[in-house]
Amino acid sequence: MSLDAVLAKIDDDLPNATERLLNLLRIPSVSTDPAFKRDCDDAADWLVADLKMLGADASKRLTPGHPMVVGHIDGDGPHVMFYGHYDVQPVDPLDLWDTPPFEPAIEDTPAGKVISGRGSSDDKGQLMTFVEACRAWKDVHGSLPCKISFFFEGEEESGSPSLVPFMVKNAEELKSDIALICDTGLFESKVPSIVTMLRGLVAEEIIVKGPDRDLHSGMYGGVAMNPIRVLSNIITGLHDGTGRITLPGFYDAVPELADEIRAQWQGLGFDHAKFLGDVGLSVPAGEQDRTPLEMIWSRPTCDVNGIWGGYAGDGFKTVLPAEAGAKISFRLVGQQDPDAIHEAFETYVRSCLPEDYTVEFPLGKGSKASQMSIKDPAFEKARKALSDEWPNPAAYVGCGGSIPIAGHFKDILGVDAMLIGFGKDDDQIHSPNEKYDLESFHKGIRSWARILDALSA
Amino acid sequence: MSLDAVLAKIDDDLPNATERLLNLLRIPSVSTDPAFKRDCDDAADWLVADLKMLGADASKRLTPGHPMVVGHIDGDGPHVMFYGHYDVQPVDPLDLWDTPPFEPAIEDTPAGKVISGRGSSDDKGQLMTFVEACRAWKDVHGSLPCKISFFFEGEEESGSPSLVPFMVKNAEELKSDIALICDTGLFESKVPSIVTMLRGLVAEEIIVKGPDRDLHSGMYGGVAMNPIRVLSNIITGLHDGTGRITLPGFYDAVPELADEIRAQWQGLGFDHAKFLGDVGLSVPAGEQDRTPLEMIWSRPTCDVNGIWGGYAGDGFKTVLPAEAGAKISFRLVGQQDPDAIHEAFETYVRSCLPEDYTVEFPLGKGSKASQMSIKDPAFEKARKALSDEWPNPAAYVGCGGSIPIAGHFKDILGVDAMLIGFGKDDDQIHSPNEKYDLESFHKGIRSWARILDALSA
Repeated sequence: MSLDAVLAKIDDDLPNATERLLNLLRIPSVSTDPAFKRDCDDAADWLVADLKMLGADASKRLTPGHPMVVGHIDGDGPHVMFYGHYDVQPVDPLDLWDTPPFEPAIEDTPAGKVISGRGSSDDKGQLMTFVEACRAWKDVHGSLPCKISFFFEGEEESGSPSLVPFMVKNAEELKSDIALICDTGLFESKVPSIVTMLRGLVAEEIIVKGPDRDLHSGMYGGVAMNPIRVLSNIITGLHDGTGRITLPGFYDAVPELADEIRAQWQGLGFDHAKFLGDVGLSVPAGEQDRTPLEMIWSRPTCDVNGIWGGYAGDGFKTVLPAEAGAKISFRLVGQQDPDAIHEAFETYVRSCLPEDYTVEFPLGKGSKASQMSIKDPAFEKARKALSDEWPNPAAYVGCGGSIPIAGHFKDILGVDAMLIGFGKDDDQIHSPNEKYDLESFHKGIRSWARILDALSA
Repeated sequence: MSLDAVLAKIDDDLPNATERLLNLLRIPSVSTDPAFKRDCDDAADWLVADLKMLGADASKRLTPGHPMVVGHIDGDGPHVMFYGHYDVQPVDPLDLWDTPPFEPAIEDTPAGKVISGRGSSDDKGQLMTFVEACRAWKDVHGSLPCKISFFFEGEEESGSPSLVPFMVKNAEELKSDIALICDTGLFESKVPSIVTMLRGLVAEEIIVKGPDRDLHSGMYGGVAMNPIRVLSNIITGLHDGTGRITLPGFYDAVPELADEIRAQWQGLGFDHAKFLGDVGLSVPAGEQDRTPLEMIWSRPTCDVNGIWGGYAGDGFKTVLPAEAGAKISFRLVGQQDPDAIHEAFETYVRSCLPEDYTVEFPLGKGSKASQMSIKDPAFEKARKALSDEWPNPAAYVGCGGSIPIAGHFKDILGVDAMLIGFGKDDDQIHSPNEKYDLESFHKGIRSWARILDALSA
């Protein structure tokens, strides 16, 4: 079957493809906030309907949380499973958005046309690149070059509580020859890449409780230990003066980077100054003997993602609060065990508590890091197909984020996963003013058409 | 004129006095939050109308902030100025209130009847004790035993920005022989007291800013310094391991407690264990070589009154925030200079900032500590009058809170102030479920009637 005709069809149909994406982006499917439960359901329904238009046997599959969407299209060639997620991050602080996050639009910018809105890049826009590639193949040839399955999740931004149970229960249905995951980006916004290393994640919340009520700081200040001070001490003690994380045993299962991988990464010519300069910084924090790229891809981290306690409104309130809390996450690499990290963290936090204090750990869930095997010839086929579409040849890279699904495909289904995505560093994912370049969307669709062609060869 | 008839009138009229207080409590005059500006104005109008019913020449006096209420009633005897504040603290967290904060009620409790609602104790209920005492005198005798002025503020809970300019501008009108301030409590909830030492207050806010936008912690975590970590380091470093505040020069102007005052305070038999036990604590924090009473009345403190940054909602968001902030207050004693403390704090905070970081100080205002002169015979007259009303003789005590008005009466008007109040330790001022014992209200009114009688003698 002719790839060129498919690519031409993709070019012609881009306005319609974009319009379809905007419709999906208008659904505020914020998975972490129960207020948007209905919207997550609506997004799943929208996807089922769209897959059915492609001729897929598609259905919404209920879970204790948000539903999964699964669809299958028979075809010759290898069986390819595609994964994406239809849920999005919360949008606060809302006042920092230039346009409403769920009123997406095509905008002209000095750097070209972009699709604006929450989820445009992470991950609805990326998810739709694959769907649109299939649509073009189907439109041109009446069939697809591979047997295709679609697997869309609605809880990726909220810890994927239903994912593993669902995959275990439906393992036979979800098995394939190779899995494709579109939730990553172009390296340095220009080099197409296949991610072969992913960090794991432990997401913790701690709520530190001291006095049994809010107190007047004029009456009890100094005498009653302040929970915000206790929390600050805990956070401060998590790193030493050199940026290393202090939990006992934290680095035990962290491998040193192999020389050949370090050499390959150095060959990428990563612009560390630009990486920091893009966000208004000039000096890297963290372990002082590591390069930023090494830190992001191959080193574990600990970050505080949120903190609260006492009075944070206008003016001043001389309160000594009864409690204070924080959300703290660890990125894991190598063989670091999420359960062991959680235990070390809990032990550490409890050791920091003064007399009379208690602490709660409402979360404490995690996933291990993943390492792909690139011996499967599909990896090299895909890398060449990507290289044909983009000005720069494609590379195998690491990823600082945590996409546990890749590990689940391997562990539960025995299937290798290729992580290929077209996001750019300035897409503002998880931030106000998220966008997806129209070029990413367009060339993303074309990339998948080429990859399907290559995998079927 | 007969005091007994006035006390009898107070007893008879208590239900009506209580009803008047409930009406005032229904006005949500939260001064720190601009959303309640209109309500503060309403509370001022309510008080003007009530003072006029007493025959006072009363008026609402506009300021750049919330209005003052000033009223005068001519009479024989010394000129007595009474100060109280009609504004109240914010009510959050609202879900911890058993009944709505602005729907006050008389409630039966195992410990007796209480008046519930925000401001019932701090300070509307206390303010009205004096007004009701005057009303009873007027009703019984047609006149008052002293020349009386009323001075009610609406910004006490938000730093009193208009107070000093107003007092300076209206100094002639506000001068009197003695000032009475009702914004304090019974010592250990049972000993009537006149406060002769008040701590000062420096209220700071810091907003620490690093990256120029919120970042994905998977992409920038570890490499970009986290503002919540920076803020935690700042807070942690404000105290050393023994509970002392580390700002250079902080203790320079802090006097050691005189032996005779320490002895007098020890004679009060303060129950330190109960003081802590009342709020669910057993071990005092702070300087380990000081007793809690000494710490509260005579030692400076530093507390964090609020903190915020990143994502604090349901679920988890792997954000590395662009900024984080905290509200931090210092209680001052002796000759500690608020401006010098602010400067030392700002210098310290700036010294904690990593490269690329900035900090803002939107507040940084303060007041010195106050020390009353008890040589004025009015003090001893009032102490005896209080002793006649209550089961325990009245005492001269210190106060951990900061009521800068007392210092202003002395500095601006040259008038000594007596701080006399009837709050109890469990009144939950500044907390959910604020209340004022009906006994405090009733005996508070009777106390002022006795004090007016004593001062006129």
